[in-house]
Amino acid sequence: MNVTDELLVLGAGVIGLTCAWRAAQDGHRVTVLDPAPASGASWVAGGMLAPVTEAWPGEEELLALGVESVRRWPGFAAELGDAAGRPAGLRTDGTLVAATGSGDRAELDALAVHLGRLGRPVERLTGRELRRLEPALGPDVRGGLSVPDDLAVDNRALLAALRGACERAGVLIVTRAAETVLDDGARVLGVRCADGAELAAAAVLVCAGAHSGGLHPALHGLVRPVKGEILRLAMRPGAFPPPRRTVRALVDGRPVYLVPRDDGGLVLGATQAEVGFDTTVTAGGVRDLLRDAERIVPGIAEYALVESAAGLRPGSPDNLPLVGAVGPAGLLVATGHHRNGMLLAPVTGDAVAALLRGHPVPGPVRAADPARLVGTRR
Amino acid sequence: MNVTDELLVLGAGVIGLTCAWRAAQDGHRVTVLDPAPASGASWVAGGMLAPVTEAWPGEEELLALGVESVRRWPGFAAELGDAAGRPAGLRTDGTLVAATGSGDRAELDALAVHLGRLGRPVERLTGRELRRLEPALGPDVRGGLSVPDDLAVDNRALLAALRGACERAGVLIVTRAAETVLDDGARVLGVRCADGAELAAAAVLVCAGAHSGGLHPALHGLVRPVKGEILRLAMRPGAFPPPRRTVRALVDGRPVYLVPRDDGGLVLGATQAEVGFDTTVTAGGVRDLLRDAERIVPGIAEYALVESAAGLRPGSPDNLPLVGAVGPAGLLVATGHHRNGMLLAPVTGDAVAALLRGHPVPGPVRAADPARLVGTRR
Repeated sequence: MNVTDELLVLGAGVIGLTCAWRAAQDGHRVTVLDPAPASGASWVAGGMLAPVTEAWPGEEELLALGVESVRRWPGFAAELGDAAGRPAGLRTDGTLVAATGSGDRAELDALAVHLGRLGRPVERLTGRELRRLEPALGPDVRGGLSVPDDLAVDNRALLAALRGACERAGVLIVTRAAETVLDDGARVLGVRCADGAELAAAAVLVCAGAHSGGLHPALHGLVRPVKGEILRLAMRPGAFPPPRRTVRALVDGRPVYLVPRDDGGLVLGATQAEVGFDTTVTAGGVRDLLRDAERIVPGIAEYALVESAAGLRPGSPDNLPLVGAVGPAGLLVATGHHRNGMLLAPVTGDAVAALLRGHPVPGPVRAADPARLVGTRR
Repeated sequence: MNVTDELLVLGAGVIGLTCAWRAAQDGHRVTVLDPAPASGASWVAGGMLAPVTEAWPGEEELLALGVESVRRWPGFAAELGDAAGRPAGLRTDGTLVAATGSGDRAELDALAVHLGRLGRPVERLTGRELRRLEPALGPDVRGGLSVPDDLAVDNRALLAALRGACERAGVLIVTRAAETVLDDGARVLGVRCADGAELAAAAVLVCAGAHSGGLHPALHGLVRPVKGEILRLAMRPGAFPPPRRTVRALVDGRPVYLVPRDDGGLVLGATQAEVGFDTTVTAGGVRDLLRDAERIVPGIAEYALVESAAGLRPGSPDNLPLVGAVGPAGLLVATGHHRNGMLLAPVTGDAVAALLRGHPVPGPVRAADPARLVGTRR
């Protein structure tokens, strides 16, 4: 086994790259291993930075974590843009939530009441008021919410910026699959790769998304793949322009979102299915996305369908991510971000940097300590 | 200008390649020019060989032409397979036509009556009888027709076989765009290419599909692009198997078809739009195809969506193709096959071979003489 003193990061998605960049800024020698860097869930993602419109009664810790991270996003994007020499892709136009039928409107009302009780009031709007803000919304939209602080990011611009910043900070990104984290029962020794090679390291950070659970016994059963299908559209000449804001909606109980890109593109997402490690785009998934999105923004019928893809979100048992130490000494984890990897990247990167320094993590990250799940694994 | 005595064929789609192969079999030295061989409408096509289920009152000449060509198909496929050393992709499982609502069933009844009057009776079936033949048909299918003589071909296998047969017969397929056919007012002189080169030839055959109209003034306005969008699906493990037969349907007045492939694939087509030279796949087109096809074969919801594409059918003013001499001496045309290029390839190839020999064309091809359209162009 080669002896090195590097921090090995397993996974070059948004979380792995963010943590690698932050660690390198702190003087660590960082190597990132990924069989296909920046190609997984982070590549497929829609890019919503939307803690408030993702809020759900009973998930107050996740809301607090998301609010803390979205607060960090503008500074993170500016710093990353400078470090990479290219924009991080942040859009600050805010988010609308739209509802069609009465059941969907009742759901939004419950969300608004819930957020009000948490001291985060949101503005309720009629269909007419929503269309005044975004003329692309169709006549079936009967009401909704305005949440200007829920933002969005162009996930592919972000990944490119993170790779650029990592490169400039001296991070080595290696196209290679890690198979398992090695330890002696007390301390991490390194990583064995799928090709049989063993890399020594005293510290290993697992950021392998839905694949994290297979990389060390201490992680088994803590992360599961949650498939999401997504479509990418492009406005065509003569078509009705897309909304400026991110538009989320409930259509007959099914959530759908439309995230605009600076180039006139529009990302439609996302289905949700727990079917193992399957990234097939299904006819039924595409049908659902197009039908539901068209109810909200009818003009997309004339848009070009330029891409369909599926990714695997890393789901955790309680929908909170896993950020902290776990198992043998030297093993850190930052995964399980489920639908919120883009959103939670800044706060996760800062938390991992703090852990590597031996400092306490930012307050809301404490709820993400993997220790909470010991004994709960399935 | 280089002087050659070759037959220049403009267009390497199914018609151009078939004619080139036939001409080479007759001893002609054949060069085919195409900026992107075998990539246009022929590549996108569904591959139905379906004159009867395409029949429409008032288009009896097209029906006769199609019936003549489908009769030639098994021999053509066998000969082509031998010549190419690979299968031509013919499937002989026949075709069902399915209808859902009462309006759609009335349309099919009218088609059945029409075909009966023409002496081509078709079998009418109830929904239950249809499902006995093809269990993949859904409960919304209330009635339809069985047309065992309407066949199908794997268009991409066919193109590969035609290229192979052309190559073995000495046909030169050149990746180069023709710009215009040159003549001296009386006779063809050759072709000027988009790159400025001029190729001399005493005989030029225009098989450039929707692009044919721009290649010589005698063809202006005779062919127009008719856009069609198509999806390719693949069965996944555990999904309900696809039908064996080609299934055509009317769904609330919209035609849709599902053409099975030998590998478990299924081609869904096709939208129809006259929007110029536009091959964008639209969200609305995909939505229509998925929605309508799923009404007929519900199991496709679980299939993988593996490809979406659009092609430009070459439409003619009267829906009959243009096969024959036109304009200056030495200019031949075989285009305007609209939805029927795959179907009409055998009879078109035989007709062009006859024209090159100075023989009469097969009887039903006489109706396709472009002379009929002089004075009708738009």
